[in-house]
Amino acid sequence: MKFEIMRDRLLDGLNDVTKAISSKTTIPILTGIKIDVTDNGVLLTGSDADITIQTFIPAEENGDQIINIIETGSIVLQARMFNEIVRKLPTNDVEIEVENEFQTHIRSGKTEFHLIGSDASEYPLLPKIDDENKFEIPADLLKAVIRETVFAVATSESRPVLTGVNWIIENDELICVATDSHRLARRKVKLENLPTDVDSIVIPGKSLNELNKILDETSNPVQIIMSNQQILFKTDHVLFFSRLLEGNYPDTSRLIPTEFKTNITLDGKTLLQAIDRASLVAREDRNNVVRFETLEDNAVKISSNSPEIGKVEEQIPVHSIDGDELVISFSAKYMMEALKAIDGQGQEVIVQFTGAMRPFILRQVNDDSILQLILPVRTY
Amino acid sequence: MKFEIMRDRLLDGLNDVTKAISSKTTIPILTGIKIDVTDNGVLLTGSDADITIQTFIPAEENGDQIINIIETGSIVLQARMFNEIVRKLPTNDVEIEVENEFQTHIRSGKTEFHLIGSDASEYPLLPKIDDENKFEIPADLLKAVIRETVFAVATSESRPVLTGVNWIIENDELICVATDSHRLARRKVKLENLPTDVDSIVIPGKSLNELNKILDETSNPVQIIMSNQQILFKTDHVLFFSRLLEGNYPDTSRLIPTEFKTNITLDGKTLLQAIDRASLVAREDRNNVVRFETLEDNAVKISSNSPEIGKVEEQIPVHSIDGDELVISFSAKYMMEALKAIDGQGQEVIVQFTGAMRPFILRQVNDDSILQLILPVRTY
Repeated sequence: MKFEIMRDRLLDGLNDVTKAISSKTTIPILTGIKIDVTDNGVLLTGSDADITIQTFIPAEENGDQIINIIETGSIVLQARMFNEIVRKLPTNDVEIEVENEFQTHIRSGKTEFHLIGSDASEYPLLPKIDDENKFEIPADLLKAVIRETVFAVATSESRPVLTGVNWIIENDELICVATDSHRLARRKVKLENLPTDVDSIVIPGKSLNELNKILDETSNPVQIIMSNQQILFKTDHVLFFSRLLEGNYPDTSRLIPTEFKTNITLDGKTLLQAIDRASLVAREDRNNVVRFETLEDNAVKISSNSPEIGKVEEQIPVHSIDGDELVISFSAKYMMEALKAIDGQGQEVIVQFTGAMRPFILRQVNDDSILQLILPVRTY
Repeated sequence: MKFEIMRDRLLDGLNDVTKAISSKTTIPILTGIKIDVTDNGVLLTGSDADITIQTFIPAEENGDQIINIIETGSIVLQARMFNEIVRKLPTNDVEIEVENEFQTHIRSGKTEFHLIGSDASEYPLLPKIDDENKFEIPADLLKAVIRETVFAVATSESRPVLTGVNWIIENDELICVATDSHRLARRKVKLENLPTDVDSIVIPGKSLNELNKILDETSNPVQIIMSNQQILFKTDHVLFFSRLLEGNYPDTSRLIPTEFKTNITLDGKTLLQAIDRASLVAREDRNNVVRFETLEDNAVKISSNSPEIGKVEEQIPVHSIDGDELVISFSAKYMMEALKAIDGQGQEVIVQFTGAMRPFILRQVNDDSILQLILPVRTY
């Protein structure tokens, strides 16, 4: 194996695939990056067994030569070390050569590194995914869908299936739901050409967080290919594979109330900032609970109280209060995360309650594609 | 105690004094900020017992009212909480009032926090420092002096006095020396009106690092007042007190060689980058040792070798080699830190050796105010 490549292009590729590599892996070869050199270019692979990221650097692009392939072959190089070496090479021309089994030479200017690589044939094979069940979604919309749901997955492994986001395909809609059983986030997206064979999968929250880091804020399409055990996200340069979670995701649709006793519309940012302040005192207590109380004259009071630290209270104006008076307590953290997901910065938000001990929901006034549900906390 | 203040001015003051506060303190009251309200303004104090930082916010500045003093008094408020509360207040107008012993109210807009403060009379008193032994130094020069020496202090407490920087006053020069007994950094500065009563003190490295964060990159004078147990650095707004280390600092002047067998001049940045690359392999070994070897034709070879990882070698050009051939090994970390302190970015550096087993020194070719000394490592 021998090739010459521009350092910057190699670095770009390494930046993508190293996101999949974990130093905590129990499979030693997965601390490495697999490099496959073919006649058409160089394929880089990084994996932590759950997530696998591949990127292909073509030998030629728009008529320009990017890589000079001298001899094809494969090697696995320790990821962190290889990455840092490439980053610190003195010139933009890099030559990589493997000889005598796994002896790898990295040359640039008058610098020469000699690393001991590993056998690429010991690197795990990627699962095969049928091209059948696929659809497309713009990258920026996919990022929004992830951001609006993934924060609500369970962090505890006591019900593993809840650590993922449930993607349901129903007619012409993709419905994404996450819940840790104390709160729930749901996002609906209308899409064309959705597959009909796969109707419900659960994607690990961690995978979606990593995918979000790789996707650009552009409207370029991301191709999504689903099977029963794997999902593949394809962009121009990157293939992102994730395993799916096994087990049946609970049916959450019946948890969402449809009739309400108190409806309050207000500015999302004003509420977020008041909760944030109340949380300064509340979070010193174990529960981080704030109290929310309707007042006369279109106002609500946000307060919290910690015997050791002190207390805080604040009145904020609301646009309207419709229905019963209400005093309710809930987690400041859940409320802040829900408001951030609705992205109510300066937007009108409606909060709909069914009593002090029942779940309540939040959404934008003119848009129900994003719904956030929170269970209140009993404080007496 | 009661006053009204602009939030931004209060925040600026808090930013300075909280740098002294450590959450790891064993003295509970030192997790707090002391607030003293007098007729002239508000004095804030933060301390970790070793370092104390004070800042005074005047009631009036250039004819503008900054604080409205309603009632004088003192209180101690938990630093982290108070800081965050002030940062998140909804308006720029803040009212702070203490009543019923230590009940503290912080009001802004329609938000009101109630905190339980502590008795200011329990806060440790500051040491008195005589104004006798004082001198001035521009802030940017003081920052440079700190940066060029403090990295070389010992991190181990086995000889506590070596965890500080030794400041010696000799005629019209301030000489600053730091050593961990494996390497040494020395900076000489000519200054006017140096005191004559105090001739050698040891300032904790940690204090100098904190001071460096507070000083601006300006030529504004910093007044330095020394006593036998304390040093005080005074800027326009901030008083920075540090205790001094006790014990006799070793006489280091006789450690510095004055006759040399090999003199090499070269570009500091070229050497730094080559050592940095060699260090990628070297640091996987316990010692982080690189090898330095003179070659014919004004070149040196930098190399390192780790049985498990691999090896690296590189030739770099030098401006001149004068004297004996040389093969020497040393810590890559020490060499990189010394080169950064000399600030040889693009500057000509001279490295002077007295044989493979003797300390060697580095400095700028045309300036001996900064000197770096490194002990080599025996590798055979």
